[in-house]
Amino acid sequence: MTFDKRKIDELAAANQQWEQQTLKKTLDRMPERQSEFITQSSVPIKRLYTPLDVQDQDYKDDLGFPGEYPYTRGVHATGHRGKLWTMRMFAGFGTAEETNARYKYLLEQGNMGLSVAFDLATLMGYDTDAPEALGEFGKCGVAISSLKDMEILMDGIPLGEVSTSMTINSPAPIIWAFYIAAAEKQGVPMAKLQGTLQNDILKEFIAQKEFIFPPEPSMRLVTDTIEFGTQHMPLWNTISISGYHIREAGSTAVQELAFTLADGLEYVRWGLERGLDIDEFAPRLSFFFNVHNDFFEEIAKLRAARRIWAREMRETFGAKNPRSWLMRFHTQTAGVSLTAQQPEINLVRVAIQALAAVMGGAQSLHTNSMDEALALPSEHAVTLAMRTQQIIAEETGVVNTIDPLGGSYFVEALTNQTEAAVYDYFRQIDELGGVIPAIKNGFFQQEISDASYRHQLEVDRNERFVVGVNKYVSEETPSIPILQMDPQGYDKQVARLKKLRLERDNLKVEETLNALRAACMGQENTMPYLIEAAKAYATLGEITDVMRETFGVYQEPAFV
Amino acid sequence: MTFDKRKIDELAAANQQWEQQTLKKTLDRMPERQSEFITQSSVPIKRLYTPLDVQDQDYKDDLGFPGEYPYTRGVHATGHRGKLWTMRMFAGFGTAEETNARYKYLLEQGNMGLSVAFDLATLMGYDTDAPEALGEFGKCGVAISSLKDMEILMDGIPLGEVSTSMTINSPAPIIWAFYIAAAEKQGVPMAKLQGTLQNDILKEFIAQKEFIFPPEPSMRLVTDTIEFGTQHMPLWNTISISGYHIREAGSTAVQELAFTLADGLEYVRWGLERGLDIDEFAPRLSFFFNVHNDFFEEIAKLRAARRIWAREMRETFGAKNPRSWLMRFHTQTAGVSLTAQQPEINLVRVAIQALAAVMGGAQSLHTNSMDEALALPSEHAVTLAMRTQQIIAEETGVVNTIDPLGGSYFVEALTNQTEAAVYDYFRQIDELGGVIPAIKNGFFQQEISDASYRHQLEVDRNERFVVGVNKYVSEETPSIPILQMDPQGYDKQVARLKKLRLERDNLKVEETLNALRAACMGQENTMPYLIEAAKAYATLGEITDVMRETFGVYQEPAFV
Repeated sequence: MTFDKRKIDELAAANQQWEQQTLKKTLDRMPERQSEFITQSSVPIKRLYTPLDVQDQDYKDDLGFPGEYPYTRGVHATGHRGKLWTMRMFAGFGTAEETNARYKYLLEQGNMGLSVAFDLATLMGYDTDAPEALGEFGKCGVAISSLKDMEILMDGIPLGEVSTSMTINSPAPIIWAFYIAAAEKQGVPMAKLQGTLQNDILKEFIAQKEFIFPPEPSMRLVTDTIEFGTQHMPLWNTISISGYHIREAGSTAVQELAFTLADGLEYVRWGLERGLDIDEFAPRLSFFFNVHNDFFEEIAKLRAARRIWAREMRETFGAKNPRSWLMRFHTQTAGVSLTAQQPEINLVRVAIQALAAVMGGAQSLHTNSMDEALALPSEHAVTLAMRTQQIIAEETGVVNTIDPLGGSYFVEALTNQTEAAVYDYFRQIDELGGVIPAIKNGFFQQEISDASYRHQLEVDRNERFVVGVNKYVSEETPSIPILQMDPQGYDKQVARLKKLRLERDNLKVEETLNALRAACMGQENTMPYLIEAAKAYATLGEITDVMRETFGVYQEPAFV
Repeated sequence: MTFDKRKIDELAAANQQWEQQTLKKTLDRMPERQSEFITQSSVPIKRLYTPLDVQDQDYKDDLGFPGEYPYTRGVHATGHRGKLWTMRMFAGFGTAEETNARYKYLLEQGNMGLSVAFDLATLMGYDTDAPEALGEFGKCGVAISSLKDMEILMDGIPLGEVSTSMTINSPAPIIWAFYIAAAEKQGVPMAKLQGTLQNDILKEFIAQKEFIFPPEPSMRLVTDTIEFGTQHMPLWNTISISGYHIREAGSTAVQELAFTLADGLEYVRWGLERGLDIDEFAPRLSFFFNVHNDFFEEIAKLRAARRIWAREMRETFGAKNPRSWLMRFHTQTAGVSLTAQQPEINLVRVAIQALAAVMGGAQSLHTNSMDEALALPSEHAVTLAMRTQQIIAEETGVVNTIDPLGGSYFVEALTNQTEAAVYDYFRQIDELGGVIPAIKNGFFQQEISDASYRHQLEVDRNERFVVGVNKYVSEETPSIPILQMDPQGYDKQVARLKKLRLERDNLKVEETLNALRAACMGQENTMPYLIEAAKAYATLGEITDVMRETFGVYQEPAFV
């Protein structure tokens, strides 16, 4: 330990004396406001943390230096002094044209990287004009049914320079193929493309439920993309292993971290089984975490995340390249924490959550807009959300030193406690036979549902308050302006699709889909076939249908 | 020291190795974004803080336990778990009627204590109808020209229950007399009144410049109130020694703290010279600090403030009562940090500043409204400002443990550094002969002006950015609703004053003013005479005139 043993003993005695005298006198006069103080995730928090709470910690082994194993204090030796996080605003709505205009606006306002939100039909592998897509057009993101839409989406945006994150999972390889083909049309070879594909199917089974194929072929597709990226796209993060949606589904911070890391380790195992060298592909794995209301719990989570990943990569998987050990992650403030009531106070929630993300050492951050509980973000609201990040970067000084909370007895104790709780979950998952068996028997789903229920109970019993919802309620009705989408958007998109199907070389489409079908049925990597189909202007729905035929469609079993 | 000596030596070697290898490699590849990183107050900040930076600190002596000397970790053994800070919104505009309505609204919204802002005429001791008051009515606060106005201001507010802070300095004893008399009319004896009088004349000479009388008689009046409060009003804070205005005038965080503490020590000396026992009056001294943009600098300032005050009270002045050692303070977010451009992003600034105040252990907090750079706060804006505090209290979890940043290498090092810099200023002030000589030769004024100039230069040279001002400028013009005051307010107030002068017992007024004049010219405590004059409905201007005659009026010398 880093502390002086004799001093620690003295301190233990002093602490006892404080408890019996000063503290007791205060408590006798005035009890605390609550009998127990808990985090957003219902973890009990002690009254006071001192060196006693971190006496076993060793600075060098447990914290270390930024940019060095175990990366608790950050993955870069210069932290945010060297490079700010990427301000990356997730956006997408209506038609590709509308979203393209929003991207150009965001880039003007200081956004540093694109982040594409797709609509539900696209996420489920349906073209806009499919019957299954009805009523979902453009609502939670942009509709991308073919390479044509992707070309429009990225029109005038230099794909060789910008980095693009795409939040898509089951059809991730198809959308990636559209993007690679659109870049080629701009004259940018795939080796130069920078960005991230979410491509995290395991968390879909666990929480988000936007899966198409069963777990095994889904994992095969993910492994195809990892292999393809490793071989051809050195600047691309082939996967963004995501806790965000696990958290939004109601999990605790510990569950978010444990399940996400377990998923990450599962992808590593599949990569190794495919015959890849861990040091070839692990450096391009990236992560994505939620940053919720509880300031210190979130910071502890992010610090623990880096340390656990580094230890697992080095100790369990024997990775030799330090780049395989270091965890890079995107963060997003907690959508679920925002209220429709008094929407402007969401600016406050988002600001504090964003501050936690930055202090936790995020490489990338999306700040939610204050109107997100009411509608898709308006231009005004999204500008304020970006300004929030810019104020943190320019005015608060928290970027001036690396890991500013390092050494805080509370933060270090909470980091250790989070790490220990994650390993508890790892043991439980192992006992169930691993991630996929645990998914199939509903373990994750049940854990999240229990946590979510407990939280709701606390709110219902007024043991936990949400400002504007069950405390400090205002009569005032919100009067902020709301985004208006192109009312003709759906018709335009459907017309474009019909025109595309008439004008493309349909023989070529047929050929590429047949080649893809053969690849899916065999062992070959599907990515080259997907790119060919994309270039022939096969649509998302057509390509997905081929895969549905060959892989089957997954139905989640009913858990008792 | 609390750390293991051997571990510290090991760490020093490891740190050097990190600098020469990992860090060097990173810097060779990519230099940092700036050659130097400085706080809001232009203090340089190191890249990384480790146990090496706090190796000489001793936990027990330098931090200790909350509620125990030296109070670095807070003055209460249960921190904000025991009692939240008082959410105290500073408010006042137009007539007493308008401000009274605002107070009632604020109390309904969860405001816990009143805080009265007075208009400039009142602050300078003029009645609303005085020629000197022209054009100033109700603009930066409420106009209170007599007990009559105070009665209206506090109408329907139970003065035996609420605690009231009054931001007034040169005429503080007069306004306090109005308040005491208004309470008596409600049937509340002065011994039961709770609240705070700002009453800090030294910072007026140093920064705010709203003084009337020369320093010595001004200090005599302050000492009168301290003596009177000590004898008759045990629940009242007779003074709020204020760094706020020093900071708003452009000082650094260290200057704010050093000058405020120096002022505090000066008041103590005057109290002792008056023959008071330190342990009688020191427990009712309170402080008021600014909380500016630089998150950690502000927290370090507040932690250092408590430790220095405790050490001075105990070691230098020999106070025996622990209540004399502990510093309680109100905080307010930095008005000067707000921008007229993109006013809603001020919500973000205020949220982060408020978070720093809470983590610094504030007992009381005013959060500025987003529209304050444009106008007096509208009801909507002030509600959002209060919600900001309520979100921090209810949703962020930062109140769950005491001094959550305690132990952070950075925060502890910055706390130590701030303390050392304050003692440097103490030495300089001593060399100038003390606070009043230093005021008279313009020392404080010059120091603040230098700091303010340096800051402006950094902004002008684009070495420092203010979002919306010299970076991320938006074309959009602000469209938030602005407070509209009663257009008849001035006429109503002047009519009320005229009626008052006709209807009161003018002989009684004359008598009480004569008695006051005699007291001013002699050595007696002026407070009882002020209360008599207040009860006779002598006006603020009439009372101040008597004092102007006897004490003279101060003109600040021109400093070269």
